[in-house]
Amino acid sequence: MGQHPRVLAAMKDAIDRYGGGSGGSRNIAGTNPVHHVLEAELADLHGKEQGLLFGSGYSANDGALTVLAGGTENCAVFSDEKNHASIIDGLRHSGAEKHIFRHNDVTHLRELIAAVDPARPKLIVIESVYSMSGDLAPLAEIADIAHEHNAVTFLDEVHAVGMYGPQGAGIAASLGIADRFTVIMGTLAKGFGTSGGYIAGPAPIVDTIRNTSRPFIFTTSLPPATAAGALAAVRHLRASDTERHRLAHNATLLHTLLTQRGIPFLSDQSHIVSVFVADEEKCKRASALLLREHGIYVQPINAPSVRAGEEILRVAPSAAHTTEAVHDFAAALDDVWRAVGLSRTDAMTRWR
Amino acid sequence: MGQHPRVLAAMKDAIDRYGGGSGGSRNIAGTNPVHHVLEAELADLHGKEQGLLFGSGYSANDGALTVLAGGTENCAVFSDEKNHASIIDGLRHSGAEKHIFRHNDVTHLRELIAAVDPARPKLIVIESVYSMSGDLAPLAEIADIAHEHNAVTFLDEVHAVGMYGPQGAGIAASLGIADRFTVIMGTLAKGFGTSGGYIAGPAPIVDTIRNTSRPFIFTTSLPPATAAGALAAVRHLRASDTERHRLAHNATLLHTLLTQRGIPFLSDQSHIVSVFVADEEKCKRASALLLREHGIYVQPINAPSVRAGEEILRVAPSAAHTTEAVHDFAAALDDVWRAVGLSRTDAMTRWR
Repeated sequence: MGQHPRVLAAMKDAIDRYGGGSGGSRNIAGTNPVHHVLEAELADLHGKEQGLLFGSGYSANDGALTVLAGGTENCAVFSDEKNHASIIDGLRHSGAEKHIFRHNDVTHLRELIAAVDPARPKLIVIESVYSMSGDLAPLAEIADIAHEHNAVTFLDEVHAVGMYGPQGAGIAASLGIADRFTVIMGTLAKGFGTSGGYIAGPAPIVDTIRNTSRPFIFTTSLPPATAAGALAAVRHLRASDTERHRLAHNATLLHTLLTQRGIPFLSDQSHIVSVFVADEEKCKRASALLLREHGIYVQPINAPSVRAGEEILRVAPSAAHTTEAVHDFAAALDDVWRAVGLSRTDAMTRWR
Repeated sequence: MGQHPRVLAAMKDAIDRYGGGSGGSRNIAGTNPVHHVLEAELADLHGKEQGLLFGSGYSANDGALTVLAGGTENCAVFSDEKNHASIIDGLRHSGAEKHIFRHNDVTHLRELIAAVDPARPKLIVIESVYSMSGDLAPLAEIADIAHEHNAVTFLDEVHAVGMYGPQGAGIAASLGIADRFTVIMGTLAKGFGTSGGYIAGPAPIVDTIRNTSRPFIFTTSLPPATAAGALAAVRHLRASDTERHRLAHNATLLHTLLTQRGIPFLSDQSHIVSVFVADEEKCKRASALLLREHGIYVQPINAPSVRAGEEILRVAPSAAHTTEAVHDFAAALDDVWRAVGLSRTDAMTRWR
């Protein structure tokens, strides 16, 4: 979407109409009509009362969770161990008591939550598509646990919005259970191709965050051009399934081609295909060879984005790739795999 | 600058060339040539070795100070009590020991710093132009104190870059002492009319922040259009003094006109003219009357941006205002002052 003619045209139109920057923070002269329209659009996309824009996904998680966990007296937070750095930082900044459950392990989550006083406020924080492993959270079971224990839920759909679910509303929406999550958080910088982060949720929660979140209050708001581009992307992907079908096709094809070649990757549940190298030097060499010999850029992911010893080549086919390009990539990776002397597998690799 | 034709043209050109978003974080596929050029330009502007871009000024202060104060073993930080929320948050997140000195009070700073073990690493954090009072820090004296006590200095020039000093390099540069400050921090969202924040400083410090700052690492980088617009603004304001002369003229004229009318304001040292109302309700009413009766939008500033009971109308004439517009504004404010029943003064009001 970052190259889509509608998005680019909307950005240029907003530059002509409003100029280069927003002119201030949201509360001090920096609110533009496009901010309001985009927030309403995102709330509607997720079936929530209100939306709220932040300068980035990092700021959205940090700003919202600091308030949500920190502003709720005596709150106990339950957080998946693979949650993104911005979630970790927001919870850390909140000062709230934090219980980390093993990745996607609902049994562990149940144990931890059952051990906490039922009268205490509880918050469960998860992602739908995990950024480094590409696997999905067991959303229905987590929603059940939240319901049983009267917990508020905060669902990060950063790697899903625009790409999964009806109108691109994400994984929870694809399961028909978006209403079971209190707050849905997303980004405008991945599927929507521009920049910025947001939350959508019940009015009292969003109002509280708007009125007290320091990264929200003390930051210049999104440039009108960025907001306008994002709005065009959201509207386009609500109306069109074409890109989502292409993305799913490319992801499934890549899963198949890598499996056929015995190249290990962490999950076949999403378009994030984390090719498991598990060696920092070999990971860098593989990336360098792909670029030099095949003209293909794949970033090696090292610590601190993953743990040392769990290095990956994180591949994400897009809707814009052709079927031929996916085949070419698999063949190139096969060559590099041989050149670097990496081992093959006949099963999916599980990351802890 | 947010309306300057060169800035708008550079943004549109970058949209055509690179698209809507940057495509990733700086370390993972989101570095664009414009980011490098802009960082080099900002480093050169401030006479420092390296520059580093952040998504916002809030992120720059938060991200840089968390690393600088938190990553230096046993660091003692000395921070002006009027420092911006983003500085407060960065220092809080660093976990470092913090000593708050009274606003611009170098005697107090000297007392506090003398009481700390001379062998400990020290960091002094100040702004050049204070955002809510518009007064200037005693930079030369603070540089002396830092030198005597071997302290690292972090100078926030957010309200000065583009607007003061040779080539718009800020207040320290206008005094010829920019080299006496270790790190200079600025924004692209005020004088430079776009969006984003940055630091400039010695290579080892900037490298450390680049490699460890979580808001830097885990955030999608600035959209190329935003970076390109900012670059055009920085380059224009390095070459042209016209806007700075106009801004100084308008600020001085406004100081004079308000003084003639006995309308109290906090400082005549900068273009930030904080008209002192000191009453939340009257402040809102004055703002509403200015808009309704005179078609002039001035935001009332209430808590938490200022302390309760210290409400202000924060007026900032720009280089784009005509002399006539400044006269009209002073006359309108005079009318409103009478209508709301606010008292006059024959001296500058000092804010604590």
